[in-house]
Amino acid sequence: MANIVTARGDAQVKLEKREMLYEGSAKRLYQTDRSDVIIQEFKDEVTGSDGRKKTRIKNIGAFNAEISSYLFEYLEGFHIPTHFVRQLSECEILVKRLEIFPLELIVRNLAGGNLSTVYGLKEGTELPHPIIEHYWKSDSPNRPLVNEYHIFALGLATPEELRLLNRLSSKVNVVLKSFFSRRGMKLVDVTLEFGRHNGQILLGDELSPDTFHLWDCKTNRKLDIDSLRQDSDEARLVYEDIRNRVCARVA
Amino acid sequence: MANIVTARGDAQVKLEKREMLYEGSAKRLYQTDRSDVIIQEFKDEVTGSDGRKKTRIKNIGAFNAEISSYLFEYLEGFHIPTHFVRQLSECEILVKRLEIFPLELIVRNLAGGNLSTVYGLKEGTELPHPIIEHYWKSDSPNRPLVNEYHIFALGLATPEELRLLNRLSSKVNVVLKSFFSRRGMKLVDVTLEFGRHNGQILLGDELSPDTFHLWDCKTNRKLDIDSLRQDSDEARLVYEDIRNRVCARVA
Repeated sequence: MANIVTARGDAQVKLEKREMLYEGSAKRLYQTDRSDVIIQEFKDEVTGSDGRKKTRIKNIGAFNAEISSYLFEYLEGFHIPTHFVRQLSECEILVKRLEIFPLELIVRNLAGGNLSTVYGLKEGTELPHPIIEHYWKSDSPNRPLVNEYHIFALGLATPEELRLLNRLSSKVNVVLKSFFSRRGMKLVDVTLEFGRHNGQILLGDELSPDTFHLWDCKTNRKLDIDSLRQDSDEARLVYEDIRNRVCARVA
Repeated sequence: MANIVTARGDAQVKLEKREMLYEGSAKRLYQTDRSDVIIQEFKDEVTGSDGRKKTRIKNIGAFNAEISSYLFEYLEGFHIPTHFVRQLSECEILVKRLEIFPLELIVRNLAGGNLSTVYGLKEGTELPHPIIEHYWKSDSPNRPLVNEYHIFALGLATPEELRLLNRLSSKVNVVLKSFFSRRGMKLVDVTLEFGRHNGQILLGDELSPDTFHLWDCKTNRKLDIDSLRQDSDEARLVYEDIRNRVCARVA
């Protein structure tokens, strides 16, 4: 099922889309004829953060591909290295192949998620400093919170790597927070993954409403899938609204 | 119900034992006529680490008071500041009054506890470096694991204080590990609490089989209450054995 796709951008390189490497809830990854890049395809599917609700929503894949592409390029402008190479088609982006750290980093600006459920902070409380949490992407179904001692003992990252992951996460958060703020949205939290590529640590995965939570500044409306009726057009309209605000030119 | 007790030691100071400040599962704390010291009384009661099993065992209070006194004095010899002043009676010790940090620090040398249940490490696995975990003594019934970002955001300790707490915990662990090793026991983990007293950070609480887990080096037998039949004399014999080994002169 090899399939020739043409990469947009300066170099019109022909790339062969080869076998699927991985299928997740919202994405598929495909090998290419080049060993250093893979194709990330966004599905028209959305899964709630509890991992249970799963809904097919038209065009969501295209919105997520476009938002991710825009934001990865934007971050590169701030010297934050990412795996993004270029958008290939409506739902496909070309990315550098990473050796992923088995860690999910969540940077939180406002209390929400487990800060509310576990630590009892009122949802929406402005934090004095962003909180970075590290979750181990272990083989078990739960992703346990780990501290730096766990990370080193379990061999998930070295002290130098962890320092860099935290510094990069913090920088991504500062840049995105201010980006969204100028577009009338509060960045509540963002989930990040990183990986190694030719000795360099790059931001990987995606940057979409599936991996960050936004609130509208004026109405405080939650612009995320967990807060929407998923069987309706509402979700699609919210994703489209975010896409429009992200990709709009802002003074 | 004031009660005059005589402190042992160089200074035979008369102290008045006043009203009870606190009663926990294994201890009672009493005010004295001096504002800077309180009396910590060990009860003949033991609670399993799950917080449910609770058993009355004769002499356990005296064993814990003696073991704690011995170990606090021993640590002071390594320039680790503790709240211990002196033993007052079989079950009572005099300690400096602390403003306690709402944190429980667990230092682990071997996998056990939540390292096994949550992170899937085989019980007894030797860790490459000790793991320090921080649990928030929140008002809620659960004591959630917190990382340094939570600690700072929740105001549980400042960065300088946390660095000192970690350094002291690490030092306590190194000293105790080697102490127990010379007495034929492996220190699996130890739970520590700290507090401020006149601007200094001191080790508080107790150092007893209620707050550390030991394994016998030869037999690998677990010398802790969770592993014993609590309705028998077995627990008392194990506590007595630990007391004897701790307080024995070792070459």
